[in-house]
Amino acid sequence: MSAEIICVGTELLLGDILNSNAQFLAQQLASMGIPHYYQTVVGDNPGRLKQVLEIAAGRSHLLIFTGGLGPTPDDLTVEAIADFFGVPLVEQPEIVEDITCKYAMRGRQMTPSNRKQALIPQDASILPNPGGTAPGIIWQPRTGLTILTFPGVPSEMKRMWQETAVPFLKNQGWGKEIIYSRMLKFWGIAESALAEKVAPFLDLPNPTVAPYALHGEVRLRVSARAASEPEAVGLIEPVAQQLRQIGGLDYYGTDTDTLASVVGFLLQEAGETLSVAESCTGGGLGQMLTSVAGSSNYFLGGVISYDNSVKISLLGVNPEDLAQVGAVSDAVAKQMAVGVKTRLSTTWGLSITGIAGPGGGTETKPVGLVYIGLAGPDDTVESFKHQLGQNRERDSIRYASASIALDQLRRTMLKKKLTADVS
Amino acid sequence: MSAEIICVGTELLLGDILNSNAQFLAQQLASMGIPHYYQTVVGDNPGRLKQVLEIAAGRSHLLIFTGGLGPTPDDLTVEAIADFFGVPLVEQPEIVEDITCKYAMRGRQMTPSNRKQALIPQDASILPNPGGTAPGIIWQPRTGLTILTFPGVPSEMKRMWQETAVPFLKNQGWGKEIIYSRMLKFWGIAESALAEKVAPFLDLPNPTVAPYALHGEVRLRVSARAASEPEAVGLIEPVAQQLRQIGGLDYYGTDTDTLASVVGFLLQEAGETLSVAESCTGGGLGQMLTSVAGSSNYFLGGVISYDNSVKISLLGVNPEDLAQVGAVSDAVAKQMAVGVKTRLSTTWGLSITGIAGPGGGTETKPVGLVYIGLAGPDDTVESFKHQLGQNRERDSIRYASASIALDQLRRTMLKKKLTADVS
Repeated sequence: MSAEIICVGTELLLGDILNSNAQFLAQQLASMGIPHYYQTVVGDNPGRLKQVLEIAAGRSHLLIFTGGLGPTPDDLTVEAIADFFGVPLVEQPEIVEDITCKYAMRGRQMTPSNRKQALIPQDASILPNPGGTAPGIIWQPRTGLTILTFPGVPSEMKRMWQETAVPFLKNQGWGKEIIYSRMLKFWGIAESALAEKVAPFLDLPNPTVAPYALHGEVRLRVSARAASEPEAVGLIEPVAQQLRQIGGLDYYGTDTDTLASVVGFLLQEAGETLSVAESCTGGGLGQMLTSVAGSSNYFLGGVISYDNSVKISLLGVNPEDLAQVGAVSDAVAKQMAVGVKTRLSTTWGLSITGIAGPGGGTETKPVGLVYIGLAGPDDTVESFKHQLGQNRERDSIRYASASIALDQLRRTMLKKKLTADVS
Repeated sequence: MSAEIICVGTELLLGDILNSNAQFLAQQLASMGIPHYYQTVVGDNPGRLKQVLEIAAGRSHLLIFTGGLGPTPDDLTVEAIADFFGVPLVEQPEIVEDITCKYAMRGRQMTPSNRKQALIPQDASILPNPGGTAPGIIWQPRTGLTILTFPGVPSEMKRMWQETAVPFLKNQGWGKEIIYSRMLKFWGIAESALAEKVAPFLDLPNPTVAPYALHGEVRLRVSARAASEPEAVGLIEPVAQQLRQIGGLDYYGTDTDTLASVVGFLLQEAGETLSVAESCTGGGLGQMLTSVAGSSNYFLGGVISYDNSVKISLLGVNPEDLAQVGAVSDAVAKQMAVGVKTRLSTTWGLSITGIAGPGGGTETKPVGLVYIGLAGPDDTVESFKHQLGQNRERDSIRYASASIALDQLRRTMLKKKLTADVS
């Protein structure tokens, strides 16, 4: 017993709008544990709509339509469905009444074209639309096949889904199980490498484990099918625990955690403070840190030393080093980190200097070369060299640089914590 | 001759991600005048993927696949396609080489599972992926049917589409009539207000003019249908010119222009320099400015004075003012701007201090209250107060604050330029 989502609308084929209805319905079906294997988008064309309906009716048991319920001539979803099953449309007085009254409330007259919205297949029931004038239908044209139609307007569709469709489906025996997921997040390891480390888990039946790569981070999605959320969590946690252990320091957080929020948590926990000195990221690192509400508890600020003159005047970087080894170097990264830490009197000073491109790369210092400087307690200072690859876009290199800097601080603080715990 | 979009990925069926790839490709096909009537989403399942392929190959002539090209076992798009047409997969040494080299550049080892990405159907050609390790294919498994595959990662897919797929398709005779668009961008005017100002243009047949609102900026898309790009531009430009005039100072740029790039252009043109002092945006303004390649020609850097101690130590803000009128005030905004301009010796100093929320708001200073400070040539300094509304998200307030600051500098520089021109 599986469902299928069919979104009707030429505007989708023209790319004028994002298909957020499909995502909402997909999430809803997943959370109810109703399997769905296909989504289709088709334009406002009766012939093609019927072809899509024929295919869907042949492979799925619950067809969920969105779009094409309006008053204009190109709204023909219900017409086409009824026509496909050879069932006549009948005008529903209660719909006419409902539309008339809704128009009256807006001080408007119901037009003849609105009457069209009152036509539904003979033996179908009305799926009420409290938020608009176009109702949907709930129809079983034959045993083992249920059809639900919704307008394309997301707010109306969502309310109709929640208030009428969900209770109806549960009552029909759909969605006895739920699917609950946890997203484990990793930084500093390639998707393929992590997938190999956790290979045996990728074949688990329940919970399932699936890897994703996103902007240089890798995620493992652990999903369990169960009768209730607590039961699902009970299935997920033991597996998640093992995956976290395998991930080791590459694992940084779960679900809504970000590198910035995790670093913030560690700083707050340790009662320590942070300042930053940014060259190629131009403020991106500070922006990531301050995107976390409450970051003022541990983040004091920093210096955007885009130009070398600023590295010298506000961070005290040695002009001779800039002249001899250049701004993108181990020495300058360290001096930037120490400089900002000292001037802002914070526990940690984190710096980034690199070549974001597209210009500025050389034989010895290609685009994508980045140095991270980290000055810590007891006057320790380290620097880390990264080569992010020359074919990456400027923004991607800048985003990765800021993320790597946060990850470096995270790892250093965690290692410090671990040694502190054992000693 | 029609195209069809097939997006492969269980994450789409689970609603984990929004199908933005389908929208991008739909817009691209529309702009090239290539008709497409169906979009399908299917999971990482070879059997169902082949069923979808069979249906699509029966009704469309150009099949565009996204997703399922990665190194993990659940990435099986190319395998399934080759299997459907009964053609063996062959390892391409040049792909192996490319992947090995990309990994080496990031200081990583290519793993056996990556080798999988080097397998493509015997007689298919490689669709290069400059941004990642998973290449796509261009394949004509039989006359009248062309298959293109792309990875699911939007940035990689878009670049491959632009750099290789579009030229290939044009060369194959697709997209004879084109739709060409210009996007005019406005800041500081509401969508409804602009729509009223340009009302007569909204009914034009060719070019068409359509308004959009996006993150506080308003856009007018001027689209022409024509046989060639020059012909389309000829239709668009006269209309665009009139729209720019109507927009006045609210019009800031076209197509790829951003507030940051326009400000950069004005600064470079005037041979002037800029520095920034940021509180609530925490580096976001500097990041916007440095997202423009070549910004080092006019942007020297700045200070992220998130904590008041930094406003005092690095910007010379008067501690008594901080105590009396508070950090979010006219006086402090001005002192921040002057402070950073003086210390970095730039022509302009631009500052932001505000309450991004969700916490920190008061009766007199609610969330969304922002002051922009602007210190200019001949020791002029102004400040601008904005109330961005209390129900906006933290990130939205921060983004708007940085944009407003850039817009303020843009308007001030333009007015200065205009008076200079007339005098």
